[in-house]
Amino acid sequence: MTISTSDITRADGRATDQLRPVRITRGWLDHAEGSVLVEFGRTRVLCAASFEEGVPRWRRGSGEGWVTAEYAMLPRSTNTRGSRESVKGKIGGRTHEISRLVGRSLRAVVDMSALGENSIVLDCDVLQADGGTRTAAITGAYVALADAVAWGQRHGHITSRGKPVLTDSVAAVSVGIIDGTPMLDLPYEEDVRAETDMNVVVTGSGKFIEVQGTAEHAPFDRSELDTLLDLAVAGAADLTRLQQDALAGELGG
Amino acid sequence: MTISTSDITRADGRATDQLRPVRITRGWLDHAEGSVLVEFGRTRVLCAASFEEGVPRWRRGSGEGWVTAEYAMLPRSTNTRGSRESVKGKIGGRTHEISRLVGRSLRAVVDMSALGENSIVLDCDVLQADGGTRTAAITGAYVALADAVAWGQRHGHITSRGKPVLTDSVAAVSVGIIDGTPMLDLPYEEDVRAETDMNVVVTGSGKFIEVQGTAEHAPFDRSELDTLLDLAVAGAADLTRLQQDALAGELGG
Amino acid sequence: MTISTSDITRADGRATDQLRPVRITRGWLDHAEGSVLVEFGRTRVLCAASFEEGVPRWRRGSGEGWVTAEYAMLPRSTNTRGSRESVKGKIGGRTHEISRLVGRSLRAVVDMSALGENSIVLDCDVLQADGGTRTAAITGAYVALADAVAWGQRHGHITSRGKPVLTDSVAAVSVGIIDGTPMLDLPYEEDVRAETDMNVVVTGSGKFIEVQGTAEHAPFDRSELDTLLDLAVAGAADLTRLQQDALAGELGG
Amino acid sequence: MTISTSDITRADGRATDQLRPVRITRGWLDHAEGSVLVEFGRTRVLCAASFEEGVPRWRRGSGEGWVTAEYAMLPRSTNTRGSRESVKGKIGGRTHEISRLVGRSLRAVVDMSALGENSIVLDCDVLQADGGTRTAAITGAYVALADAVAWGQRHGHITSRGKPVLTDSVAAVSVGIIDGTPMLDLPYEEDVRAETDMNVVVTGSGKFIEVQGTAEHAPFDRSELDTLLDLAVAGAADLTRLQQDALAGELGG
Amino acid sequence: MTISTSDITRADGRATDQLRPVRITRGWLDHAEGSVLVEFGRTRVLCAASFEEGVPRWRRGSGEGWVTAEYAMLPRSTNTRGSRESVKGKIGGRTHEISRLVGRSLRAVVDMSALGENSIVLDCDVLQADGGTRTAAITGAYVALADAVAWGQRHGHITSRGKPVLTDSVAAVSVGIIDGTPMLDLPYEEDVRAETDMNVVVTGSGKFIEVQGTAEHAPFDRSELDTLLDLAVAGAADLTRLQQDALAGELGG
Amino acid sequence: MTISTSDITRADGRATDQLRPVRITRGWLDHAEGSVLVEFGRTRVLCAASFEEGVPRWRRGSGEGWVTAEYAMLPRSTNTRGSRESVKGKIGGRTHEISRLVGRSLRAVVDMSALGENSIVLDCDVLQADGGTRTAAITGAYVALADAVAWGQRHGHITSRGKPVLTDSVAAVSVGIIDGTPMLDLPYEEDVRAETDMNVVVTGSGKFIEVQGTAEHAPFDRSELDTLLDLAVAGAADLTRLQQDALAGELGG
Repeated sequence: MTISTSDITRADGRATDQLRPVRITRGWLDHAEGSVLVEFGRTRVLCAASFEEGVPRWRRGSGEGWVTAEYAMLPRSTNTRGSRESVKGKIGGRTHEISRLVGRSLRAVVDMSALGENSIVLDCDVLQADGGTRTAAITGAYVALADAVAWGQRHGHITSRGKPVLTDSVAAVSVGIIDGTPMLDLPYEEDVRAETDMNVVVTGSGKFIEVQGTAEHAPFDRSELDTLLDLAVAGAADLTRLQQDALAGELGG
Repeated sequence: MTISTSDITRADGRATDQLRPVRITRGWLDHAEGSVLVEFGRTRVLCAASFEEGVPRWRRGSGEGWVTAEYAMLPRSTNTRGSRESVKGKIGGRTHEISRLVGRSLRAVVDMSALGENSIVLDCDVLQADGGTRTAAITGAYVALADAVAWGQRHGHITSRGKPVLTDSVAAVSVGIIDGTPMLDLPYEEDVRAETDMNVVVTGSGKFIEVQGTAEHAPFDRSELDTLLDLAVAGAADLTRLQQDALAGELGG
Repeated sequence: MTISTSDITRADGRATDQLRPVRITRGWLDHAEGSVLVEFGRTRVLCAASFEEGVPRWRRGSGEGWVTAEYAMLPRSTNTRGSRESVKGKIGGRTHEISRLVGRSLRAVVDMSALGENSIVLDCDVLQADGGTRTAAITGAYVALADAVAWGQRHGHITSRGKPVLTDSVAAVSVGIIDGTPMLDLPYEEDVRAETDMNVVVTGSGKFIEVQGTAEHAPFDRSELDTLLDLAVAGAADLTRLQQDALAGELGG
Repeated sequence: MTISTSDITRADGRATDQLRPVRITRGWLDHAEGSVLVEFGRTRVLCAASFEEGVPRWRRGSGEGWVTAEYAMLPRSTNTRGSRESVKGKIGGRTHEISRLVGRSLRAVVDMSALGENSIVLDCDVLQADGGTRTAAITGAYVALADAVAWGQRHGHITSRGKPVLTDSVAAVSVGIIDGTPMLDLPYEEDVRAETDMNVVVTGSGKFIEVQGTAEHAPFDRSELDTLLDLAVAGAADLTRLQQDALAGELGG
Repeated sequence: MTISTSDITRADGRATDQLRPVRITRGWLDHAEGSVLVEFGRTRVLCAASFEEGVPRWRRGSGEGWVTAEYAMLPRSTNTRGSRESVKGKIGGRTHEISRLVGRSLRAVVDMSALGENSIVLDCDVLQADGGTRTAAITGAYVALADAVAWGQRHGHITSRGKPVLTDSVAAVSVGIIDGTPMLDLPYEEDVRAETDMNVVVTGSGKFIEVQGTAEHAPFDRSELDTLLDLAVAGAADLTRLQQDALAGELGG
Repeated sequence: MTISTSDITRADGRATDQLRPVRITRGWLDHAEGSVLVEFGRTRVLCAASFEEGVPRWRRGSGEGWVTAEYAMLPRSTNTRGSRESVKGKIGGRTHEISRLVGRSLRAVVDMSALGENSIVLDCDVLQADGGTRTAAITGAYVALADAVAWGQRHGHITSRGKPVLTDSVAAVSVGIIDGTPMLDLPYEEDVRAETDMNVVVTGSGKFIEVQGTAEHAPFDRSELDTLLDLAVAGAADLTRLQQDALAGELGG
């Protein structure tokens, strides 16, 4: 199979290796120690980082902190209304899976002993969904996490002097093959048509934290995998820059 | 007890009979048939109206429609993080109670036979809470409902010619007595100090749909009740004007 | 609208401002520290007050007690059998709402520091429902509460000397407008026809603890509200006398 | 081991083969098609039989009816308050087990084809517990069932002419060995001390429907088993007479 | 009714008083402190005994241990697939009932003070069901329990010197009347046809721990009950020998 | 980082690119249309395939079939007992995630239109866990699926003549980096030490269905990823041969 990535026009006019317009708004909430409204095109995720002193029981006395995440979608974030998981009384498999992925991705860049016995919970609530909600969630949650860590340092809850709590940054992006063409950052309409779909979580320094590739309609071979990974790494580097810009700006702006 | 409402300065500088800054942003979501981000000061509620053809089983064949509502708070909408109801696996009493109140309040201004066998679900998700979330939810949900009804008419799902689906508008506001002084539209810090707390749902034509008064710290007498009702009716009239202005403007603006 | 309350004959022959036959039987259970079978006509609610030393965790060390309530209906208390909430695995919104109302109403007349670090749980189980179950529950639960408090004093668990635990009594009654006529204490057949329905919780000294008015079929205006409140206050005064008579009698009689 | 049943005085003065005072009050509820308040001493169970046309899906078209039961205890039926199963969100093993036993016991005397495609649900709610709640429930539920069957016949829902729906009656009683002495109909204080505890469900014609014997503190041998069965059969015969008397009397008396 | 047990040929060629081929494989699992794969014909139950230091909270400080059991069926252990209880989110009544029976049966032969403050949990998971799963579970669980007790002694967690933890052994078997003939150890096809069905739990010394007889299609009389008990006691004695043989052999063989 | 795979001795004596002893026993259950006990070393998973005519509601009338999977662990499959998900009343995130993975992996090799409107449910129950339970589950489930498909064809439920239902085979294996060395098929003790952990699902023809790599302790780079993929592809090819051998043998052997 020959893979060409040039000269393809996507429905929204993007090049195949181009992100959707990404917007990262820090300080969107007044109460949370860190908060970000992150937008990947029409996908909009509100990421709130809650700093809490103390750790879960199983971790007490270890001198180490904990970071966890909960992902959820509002019922009408999607094209047709989904039922509310709290009303159904249980969380679906997909929700569980993404919550775990977000938590794992963030923990990979946290030095738990530098965090000390403090916990940070990341709530990633999808206000509007148009593909890539989990990658937007990870990308935005990292920024909210950074603000919550800074808050903990400013307020004296984190006392590791000199030793950074965050060992790297983390961003995530989706890639997929649509009609034989590898593409970056799929909106919903591309996502449902993708033969292969991959979510890649990458550190600021370009290493992998998570690679999740799934053959949706047809198994994929090694060369396709390689092309997708290349696309993802480049896209993640763009996201890393956007995170840096956001963190360099004024909080709340 | 003597009740005076003048010459009192509130923490945020408002007069006792003055609403917080209210903002109603229509079309905040791309998918929903009606959507509003409503803000009462720092309280921020996202109201999404989903139009669905058909009605619940118990209402089929009646020729009448149905309107229902679900209210919920994001875990970090509040000052300290609350646990997520979907994770706990059940909905708390307060959530249930407010969902029922919002649904009842909206149904009171809907002509169900004019709606025909269609359903509209209002999802009111509190993104940030600072008192008055249920009154903001009702006030915003009415506007989202009006947009969803208009959508249903534009798309030919509602066919009642001439007969209006909405018989009136509806808005809600909180009032309470703090340190002996009746006040309108309580933020969280006033709400927790109120001796008496009342939520009043009023139609655009000034009639009551719901009056819920609760003695939080001390029973209240008839004259206090009267004063609170006066305040609430006047505040609701202000909200009615703001709803009218919002609906007169451009959708999405 | 003109409201007349005279010369109307109700289906059960009562005057519009007359309560149904009310019966309060104390000591209906052998184990509970306080127990009452309260009957408002055919509505029959069993109220059991359980006295427990200690308070919930969040209140420990405060020196203050706690009072809470759980309301429920037996499946065949109603005209057609309802499903059992324990079998469904969750409590409905209405059940939650009434449990909260009963608890709030009772707490309003309890001096928590005089109660000391003790808890009283009121279980209000509707054995038969014919309208007004929540108002009967509150009215009966107060008497059961009074007996449980007396039990706690007799057994030395409440040690506030001289300082009364109950600062007042509390009773509740429903009122509503049926075919334009305000009426007191609605049985089921009137309740379903009411345009406006109100539950009012009143102290023995005639002050309001809770006012919950709902427009079921048509919004109501201020003069209707005033008439309903007058009716409710008078009806509650009758209930207060019946509570006093019951408490003055022999326990178990 | 020698078993003697004479010359033993029980705490409540009964002979070892004597039932507690049993009271069966028919028509205790106004709505239910059959209802009984049954009392075995201080144990008080409200049995409501709900007649419903139609059968569960899996039985449709069979021409046969269905009878089922739900048993539950009110939280304060017991000496110390238990938590409410609807609040816990699940039914305990004991509740499940007894519900199944009651349903099975009643079905054993019902000719399902004579009942036709109708359902009868027996709700057995323990208002006060003092041992033997399951046996009281079965004994009372049979009477409520008989009334509901008669109701179905009077109202033309059961059309099996001549063919009786109830092929026999059913009653249940507990027996146990306390300090080496077999005893009939154990109240709570004897029940907890019993070495062996047995619940026996017997038809009016003296045959067994269910025999459930459990060694609580010590395994039992064949001669003990035989003595217990003799006691139970005699006690059940007494209950059968009481059921007949109740059914021969006025409904509601 | 005349009961003859001779000259009947069962579908699988057994005599009416003959067990199915029984196989007890110890040490089937590598991790569990005791484990048995027990087979009664095609019925196959995996019994795992988990030894844990400490006891549930309500038993702490008593100096006594605790033994409990959980029974469950794999979804496809049966002829047609059943739904998974973990997916449904609740445990059915039958599962609860059998779990309680298994626990009760094992506790009857354990000297809790000799066990000391240790807990043993028996997981009995039915891998394949062909009738008699609860009796196989009890029979196998006893052997796994014995191995777990021995493990606790070898590892010094049980220190009762000389005093045996197990006061007796325990086995269980089903009996029933099919077409008027009492039979031992019913496979599924006999079980569904049985008029009367009985599960009997017997100690190694021949005493009863539990007798549960149920009239499935017709009430049974005393002579039938006696015949069934005789059959069960003899069958249980055979099982006791098989348990002894298994425990006398090599672990893991 | 230099990766060397030679000259390393693993705790169990295997080469770094060597599978544990794999055993695939077909026909382990008597009822299921396909069943396999699959063993990867001490990891033991029972895979049961249930063939059911008909499809879920959302797929009816499509002419296409459906394949789904449920994965679960027995409480004592692990080193220390875990709590039973049915008792907790909800399924954990990990269970959900793996169930979804198994289902997706199998669907990738099924031609749903050739299957016709039939459903196959794969139950993968872990009897004993020692790392790699999800990869063993997928590998075994494929063989059970193949047997269930053959059953459906033999019994005339699958009628696609000539057109194969299974378009390829599927196997899965774990790989990871331990102390800098990439290794194949990790048992538990290696799994917990792995810096990077990857599960790879590969078709018989060597293409990828799923690639899930996770940095457990340190992010990984592209060359590590490449080495791991090489190892996994080779290991999966070995598993494919073992599946073919099993399917070529006698059923039940």
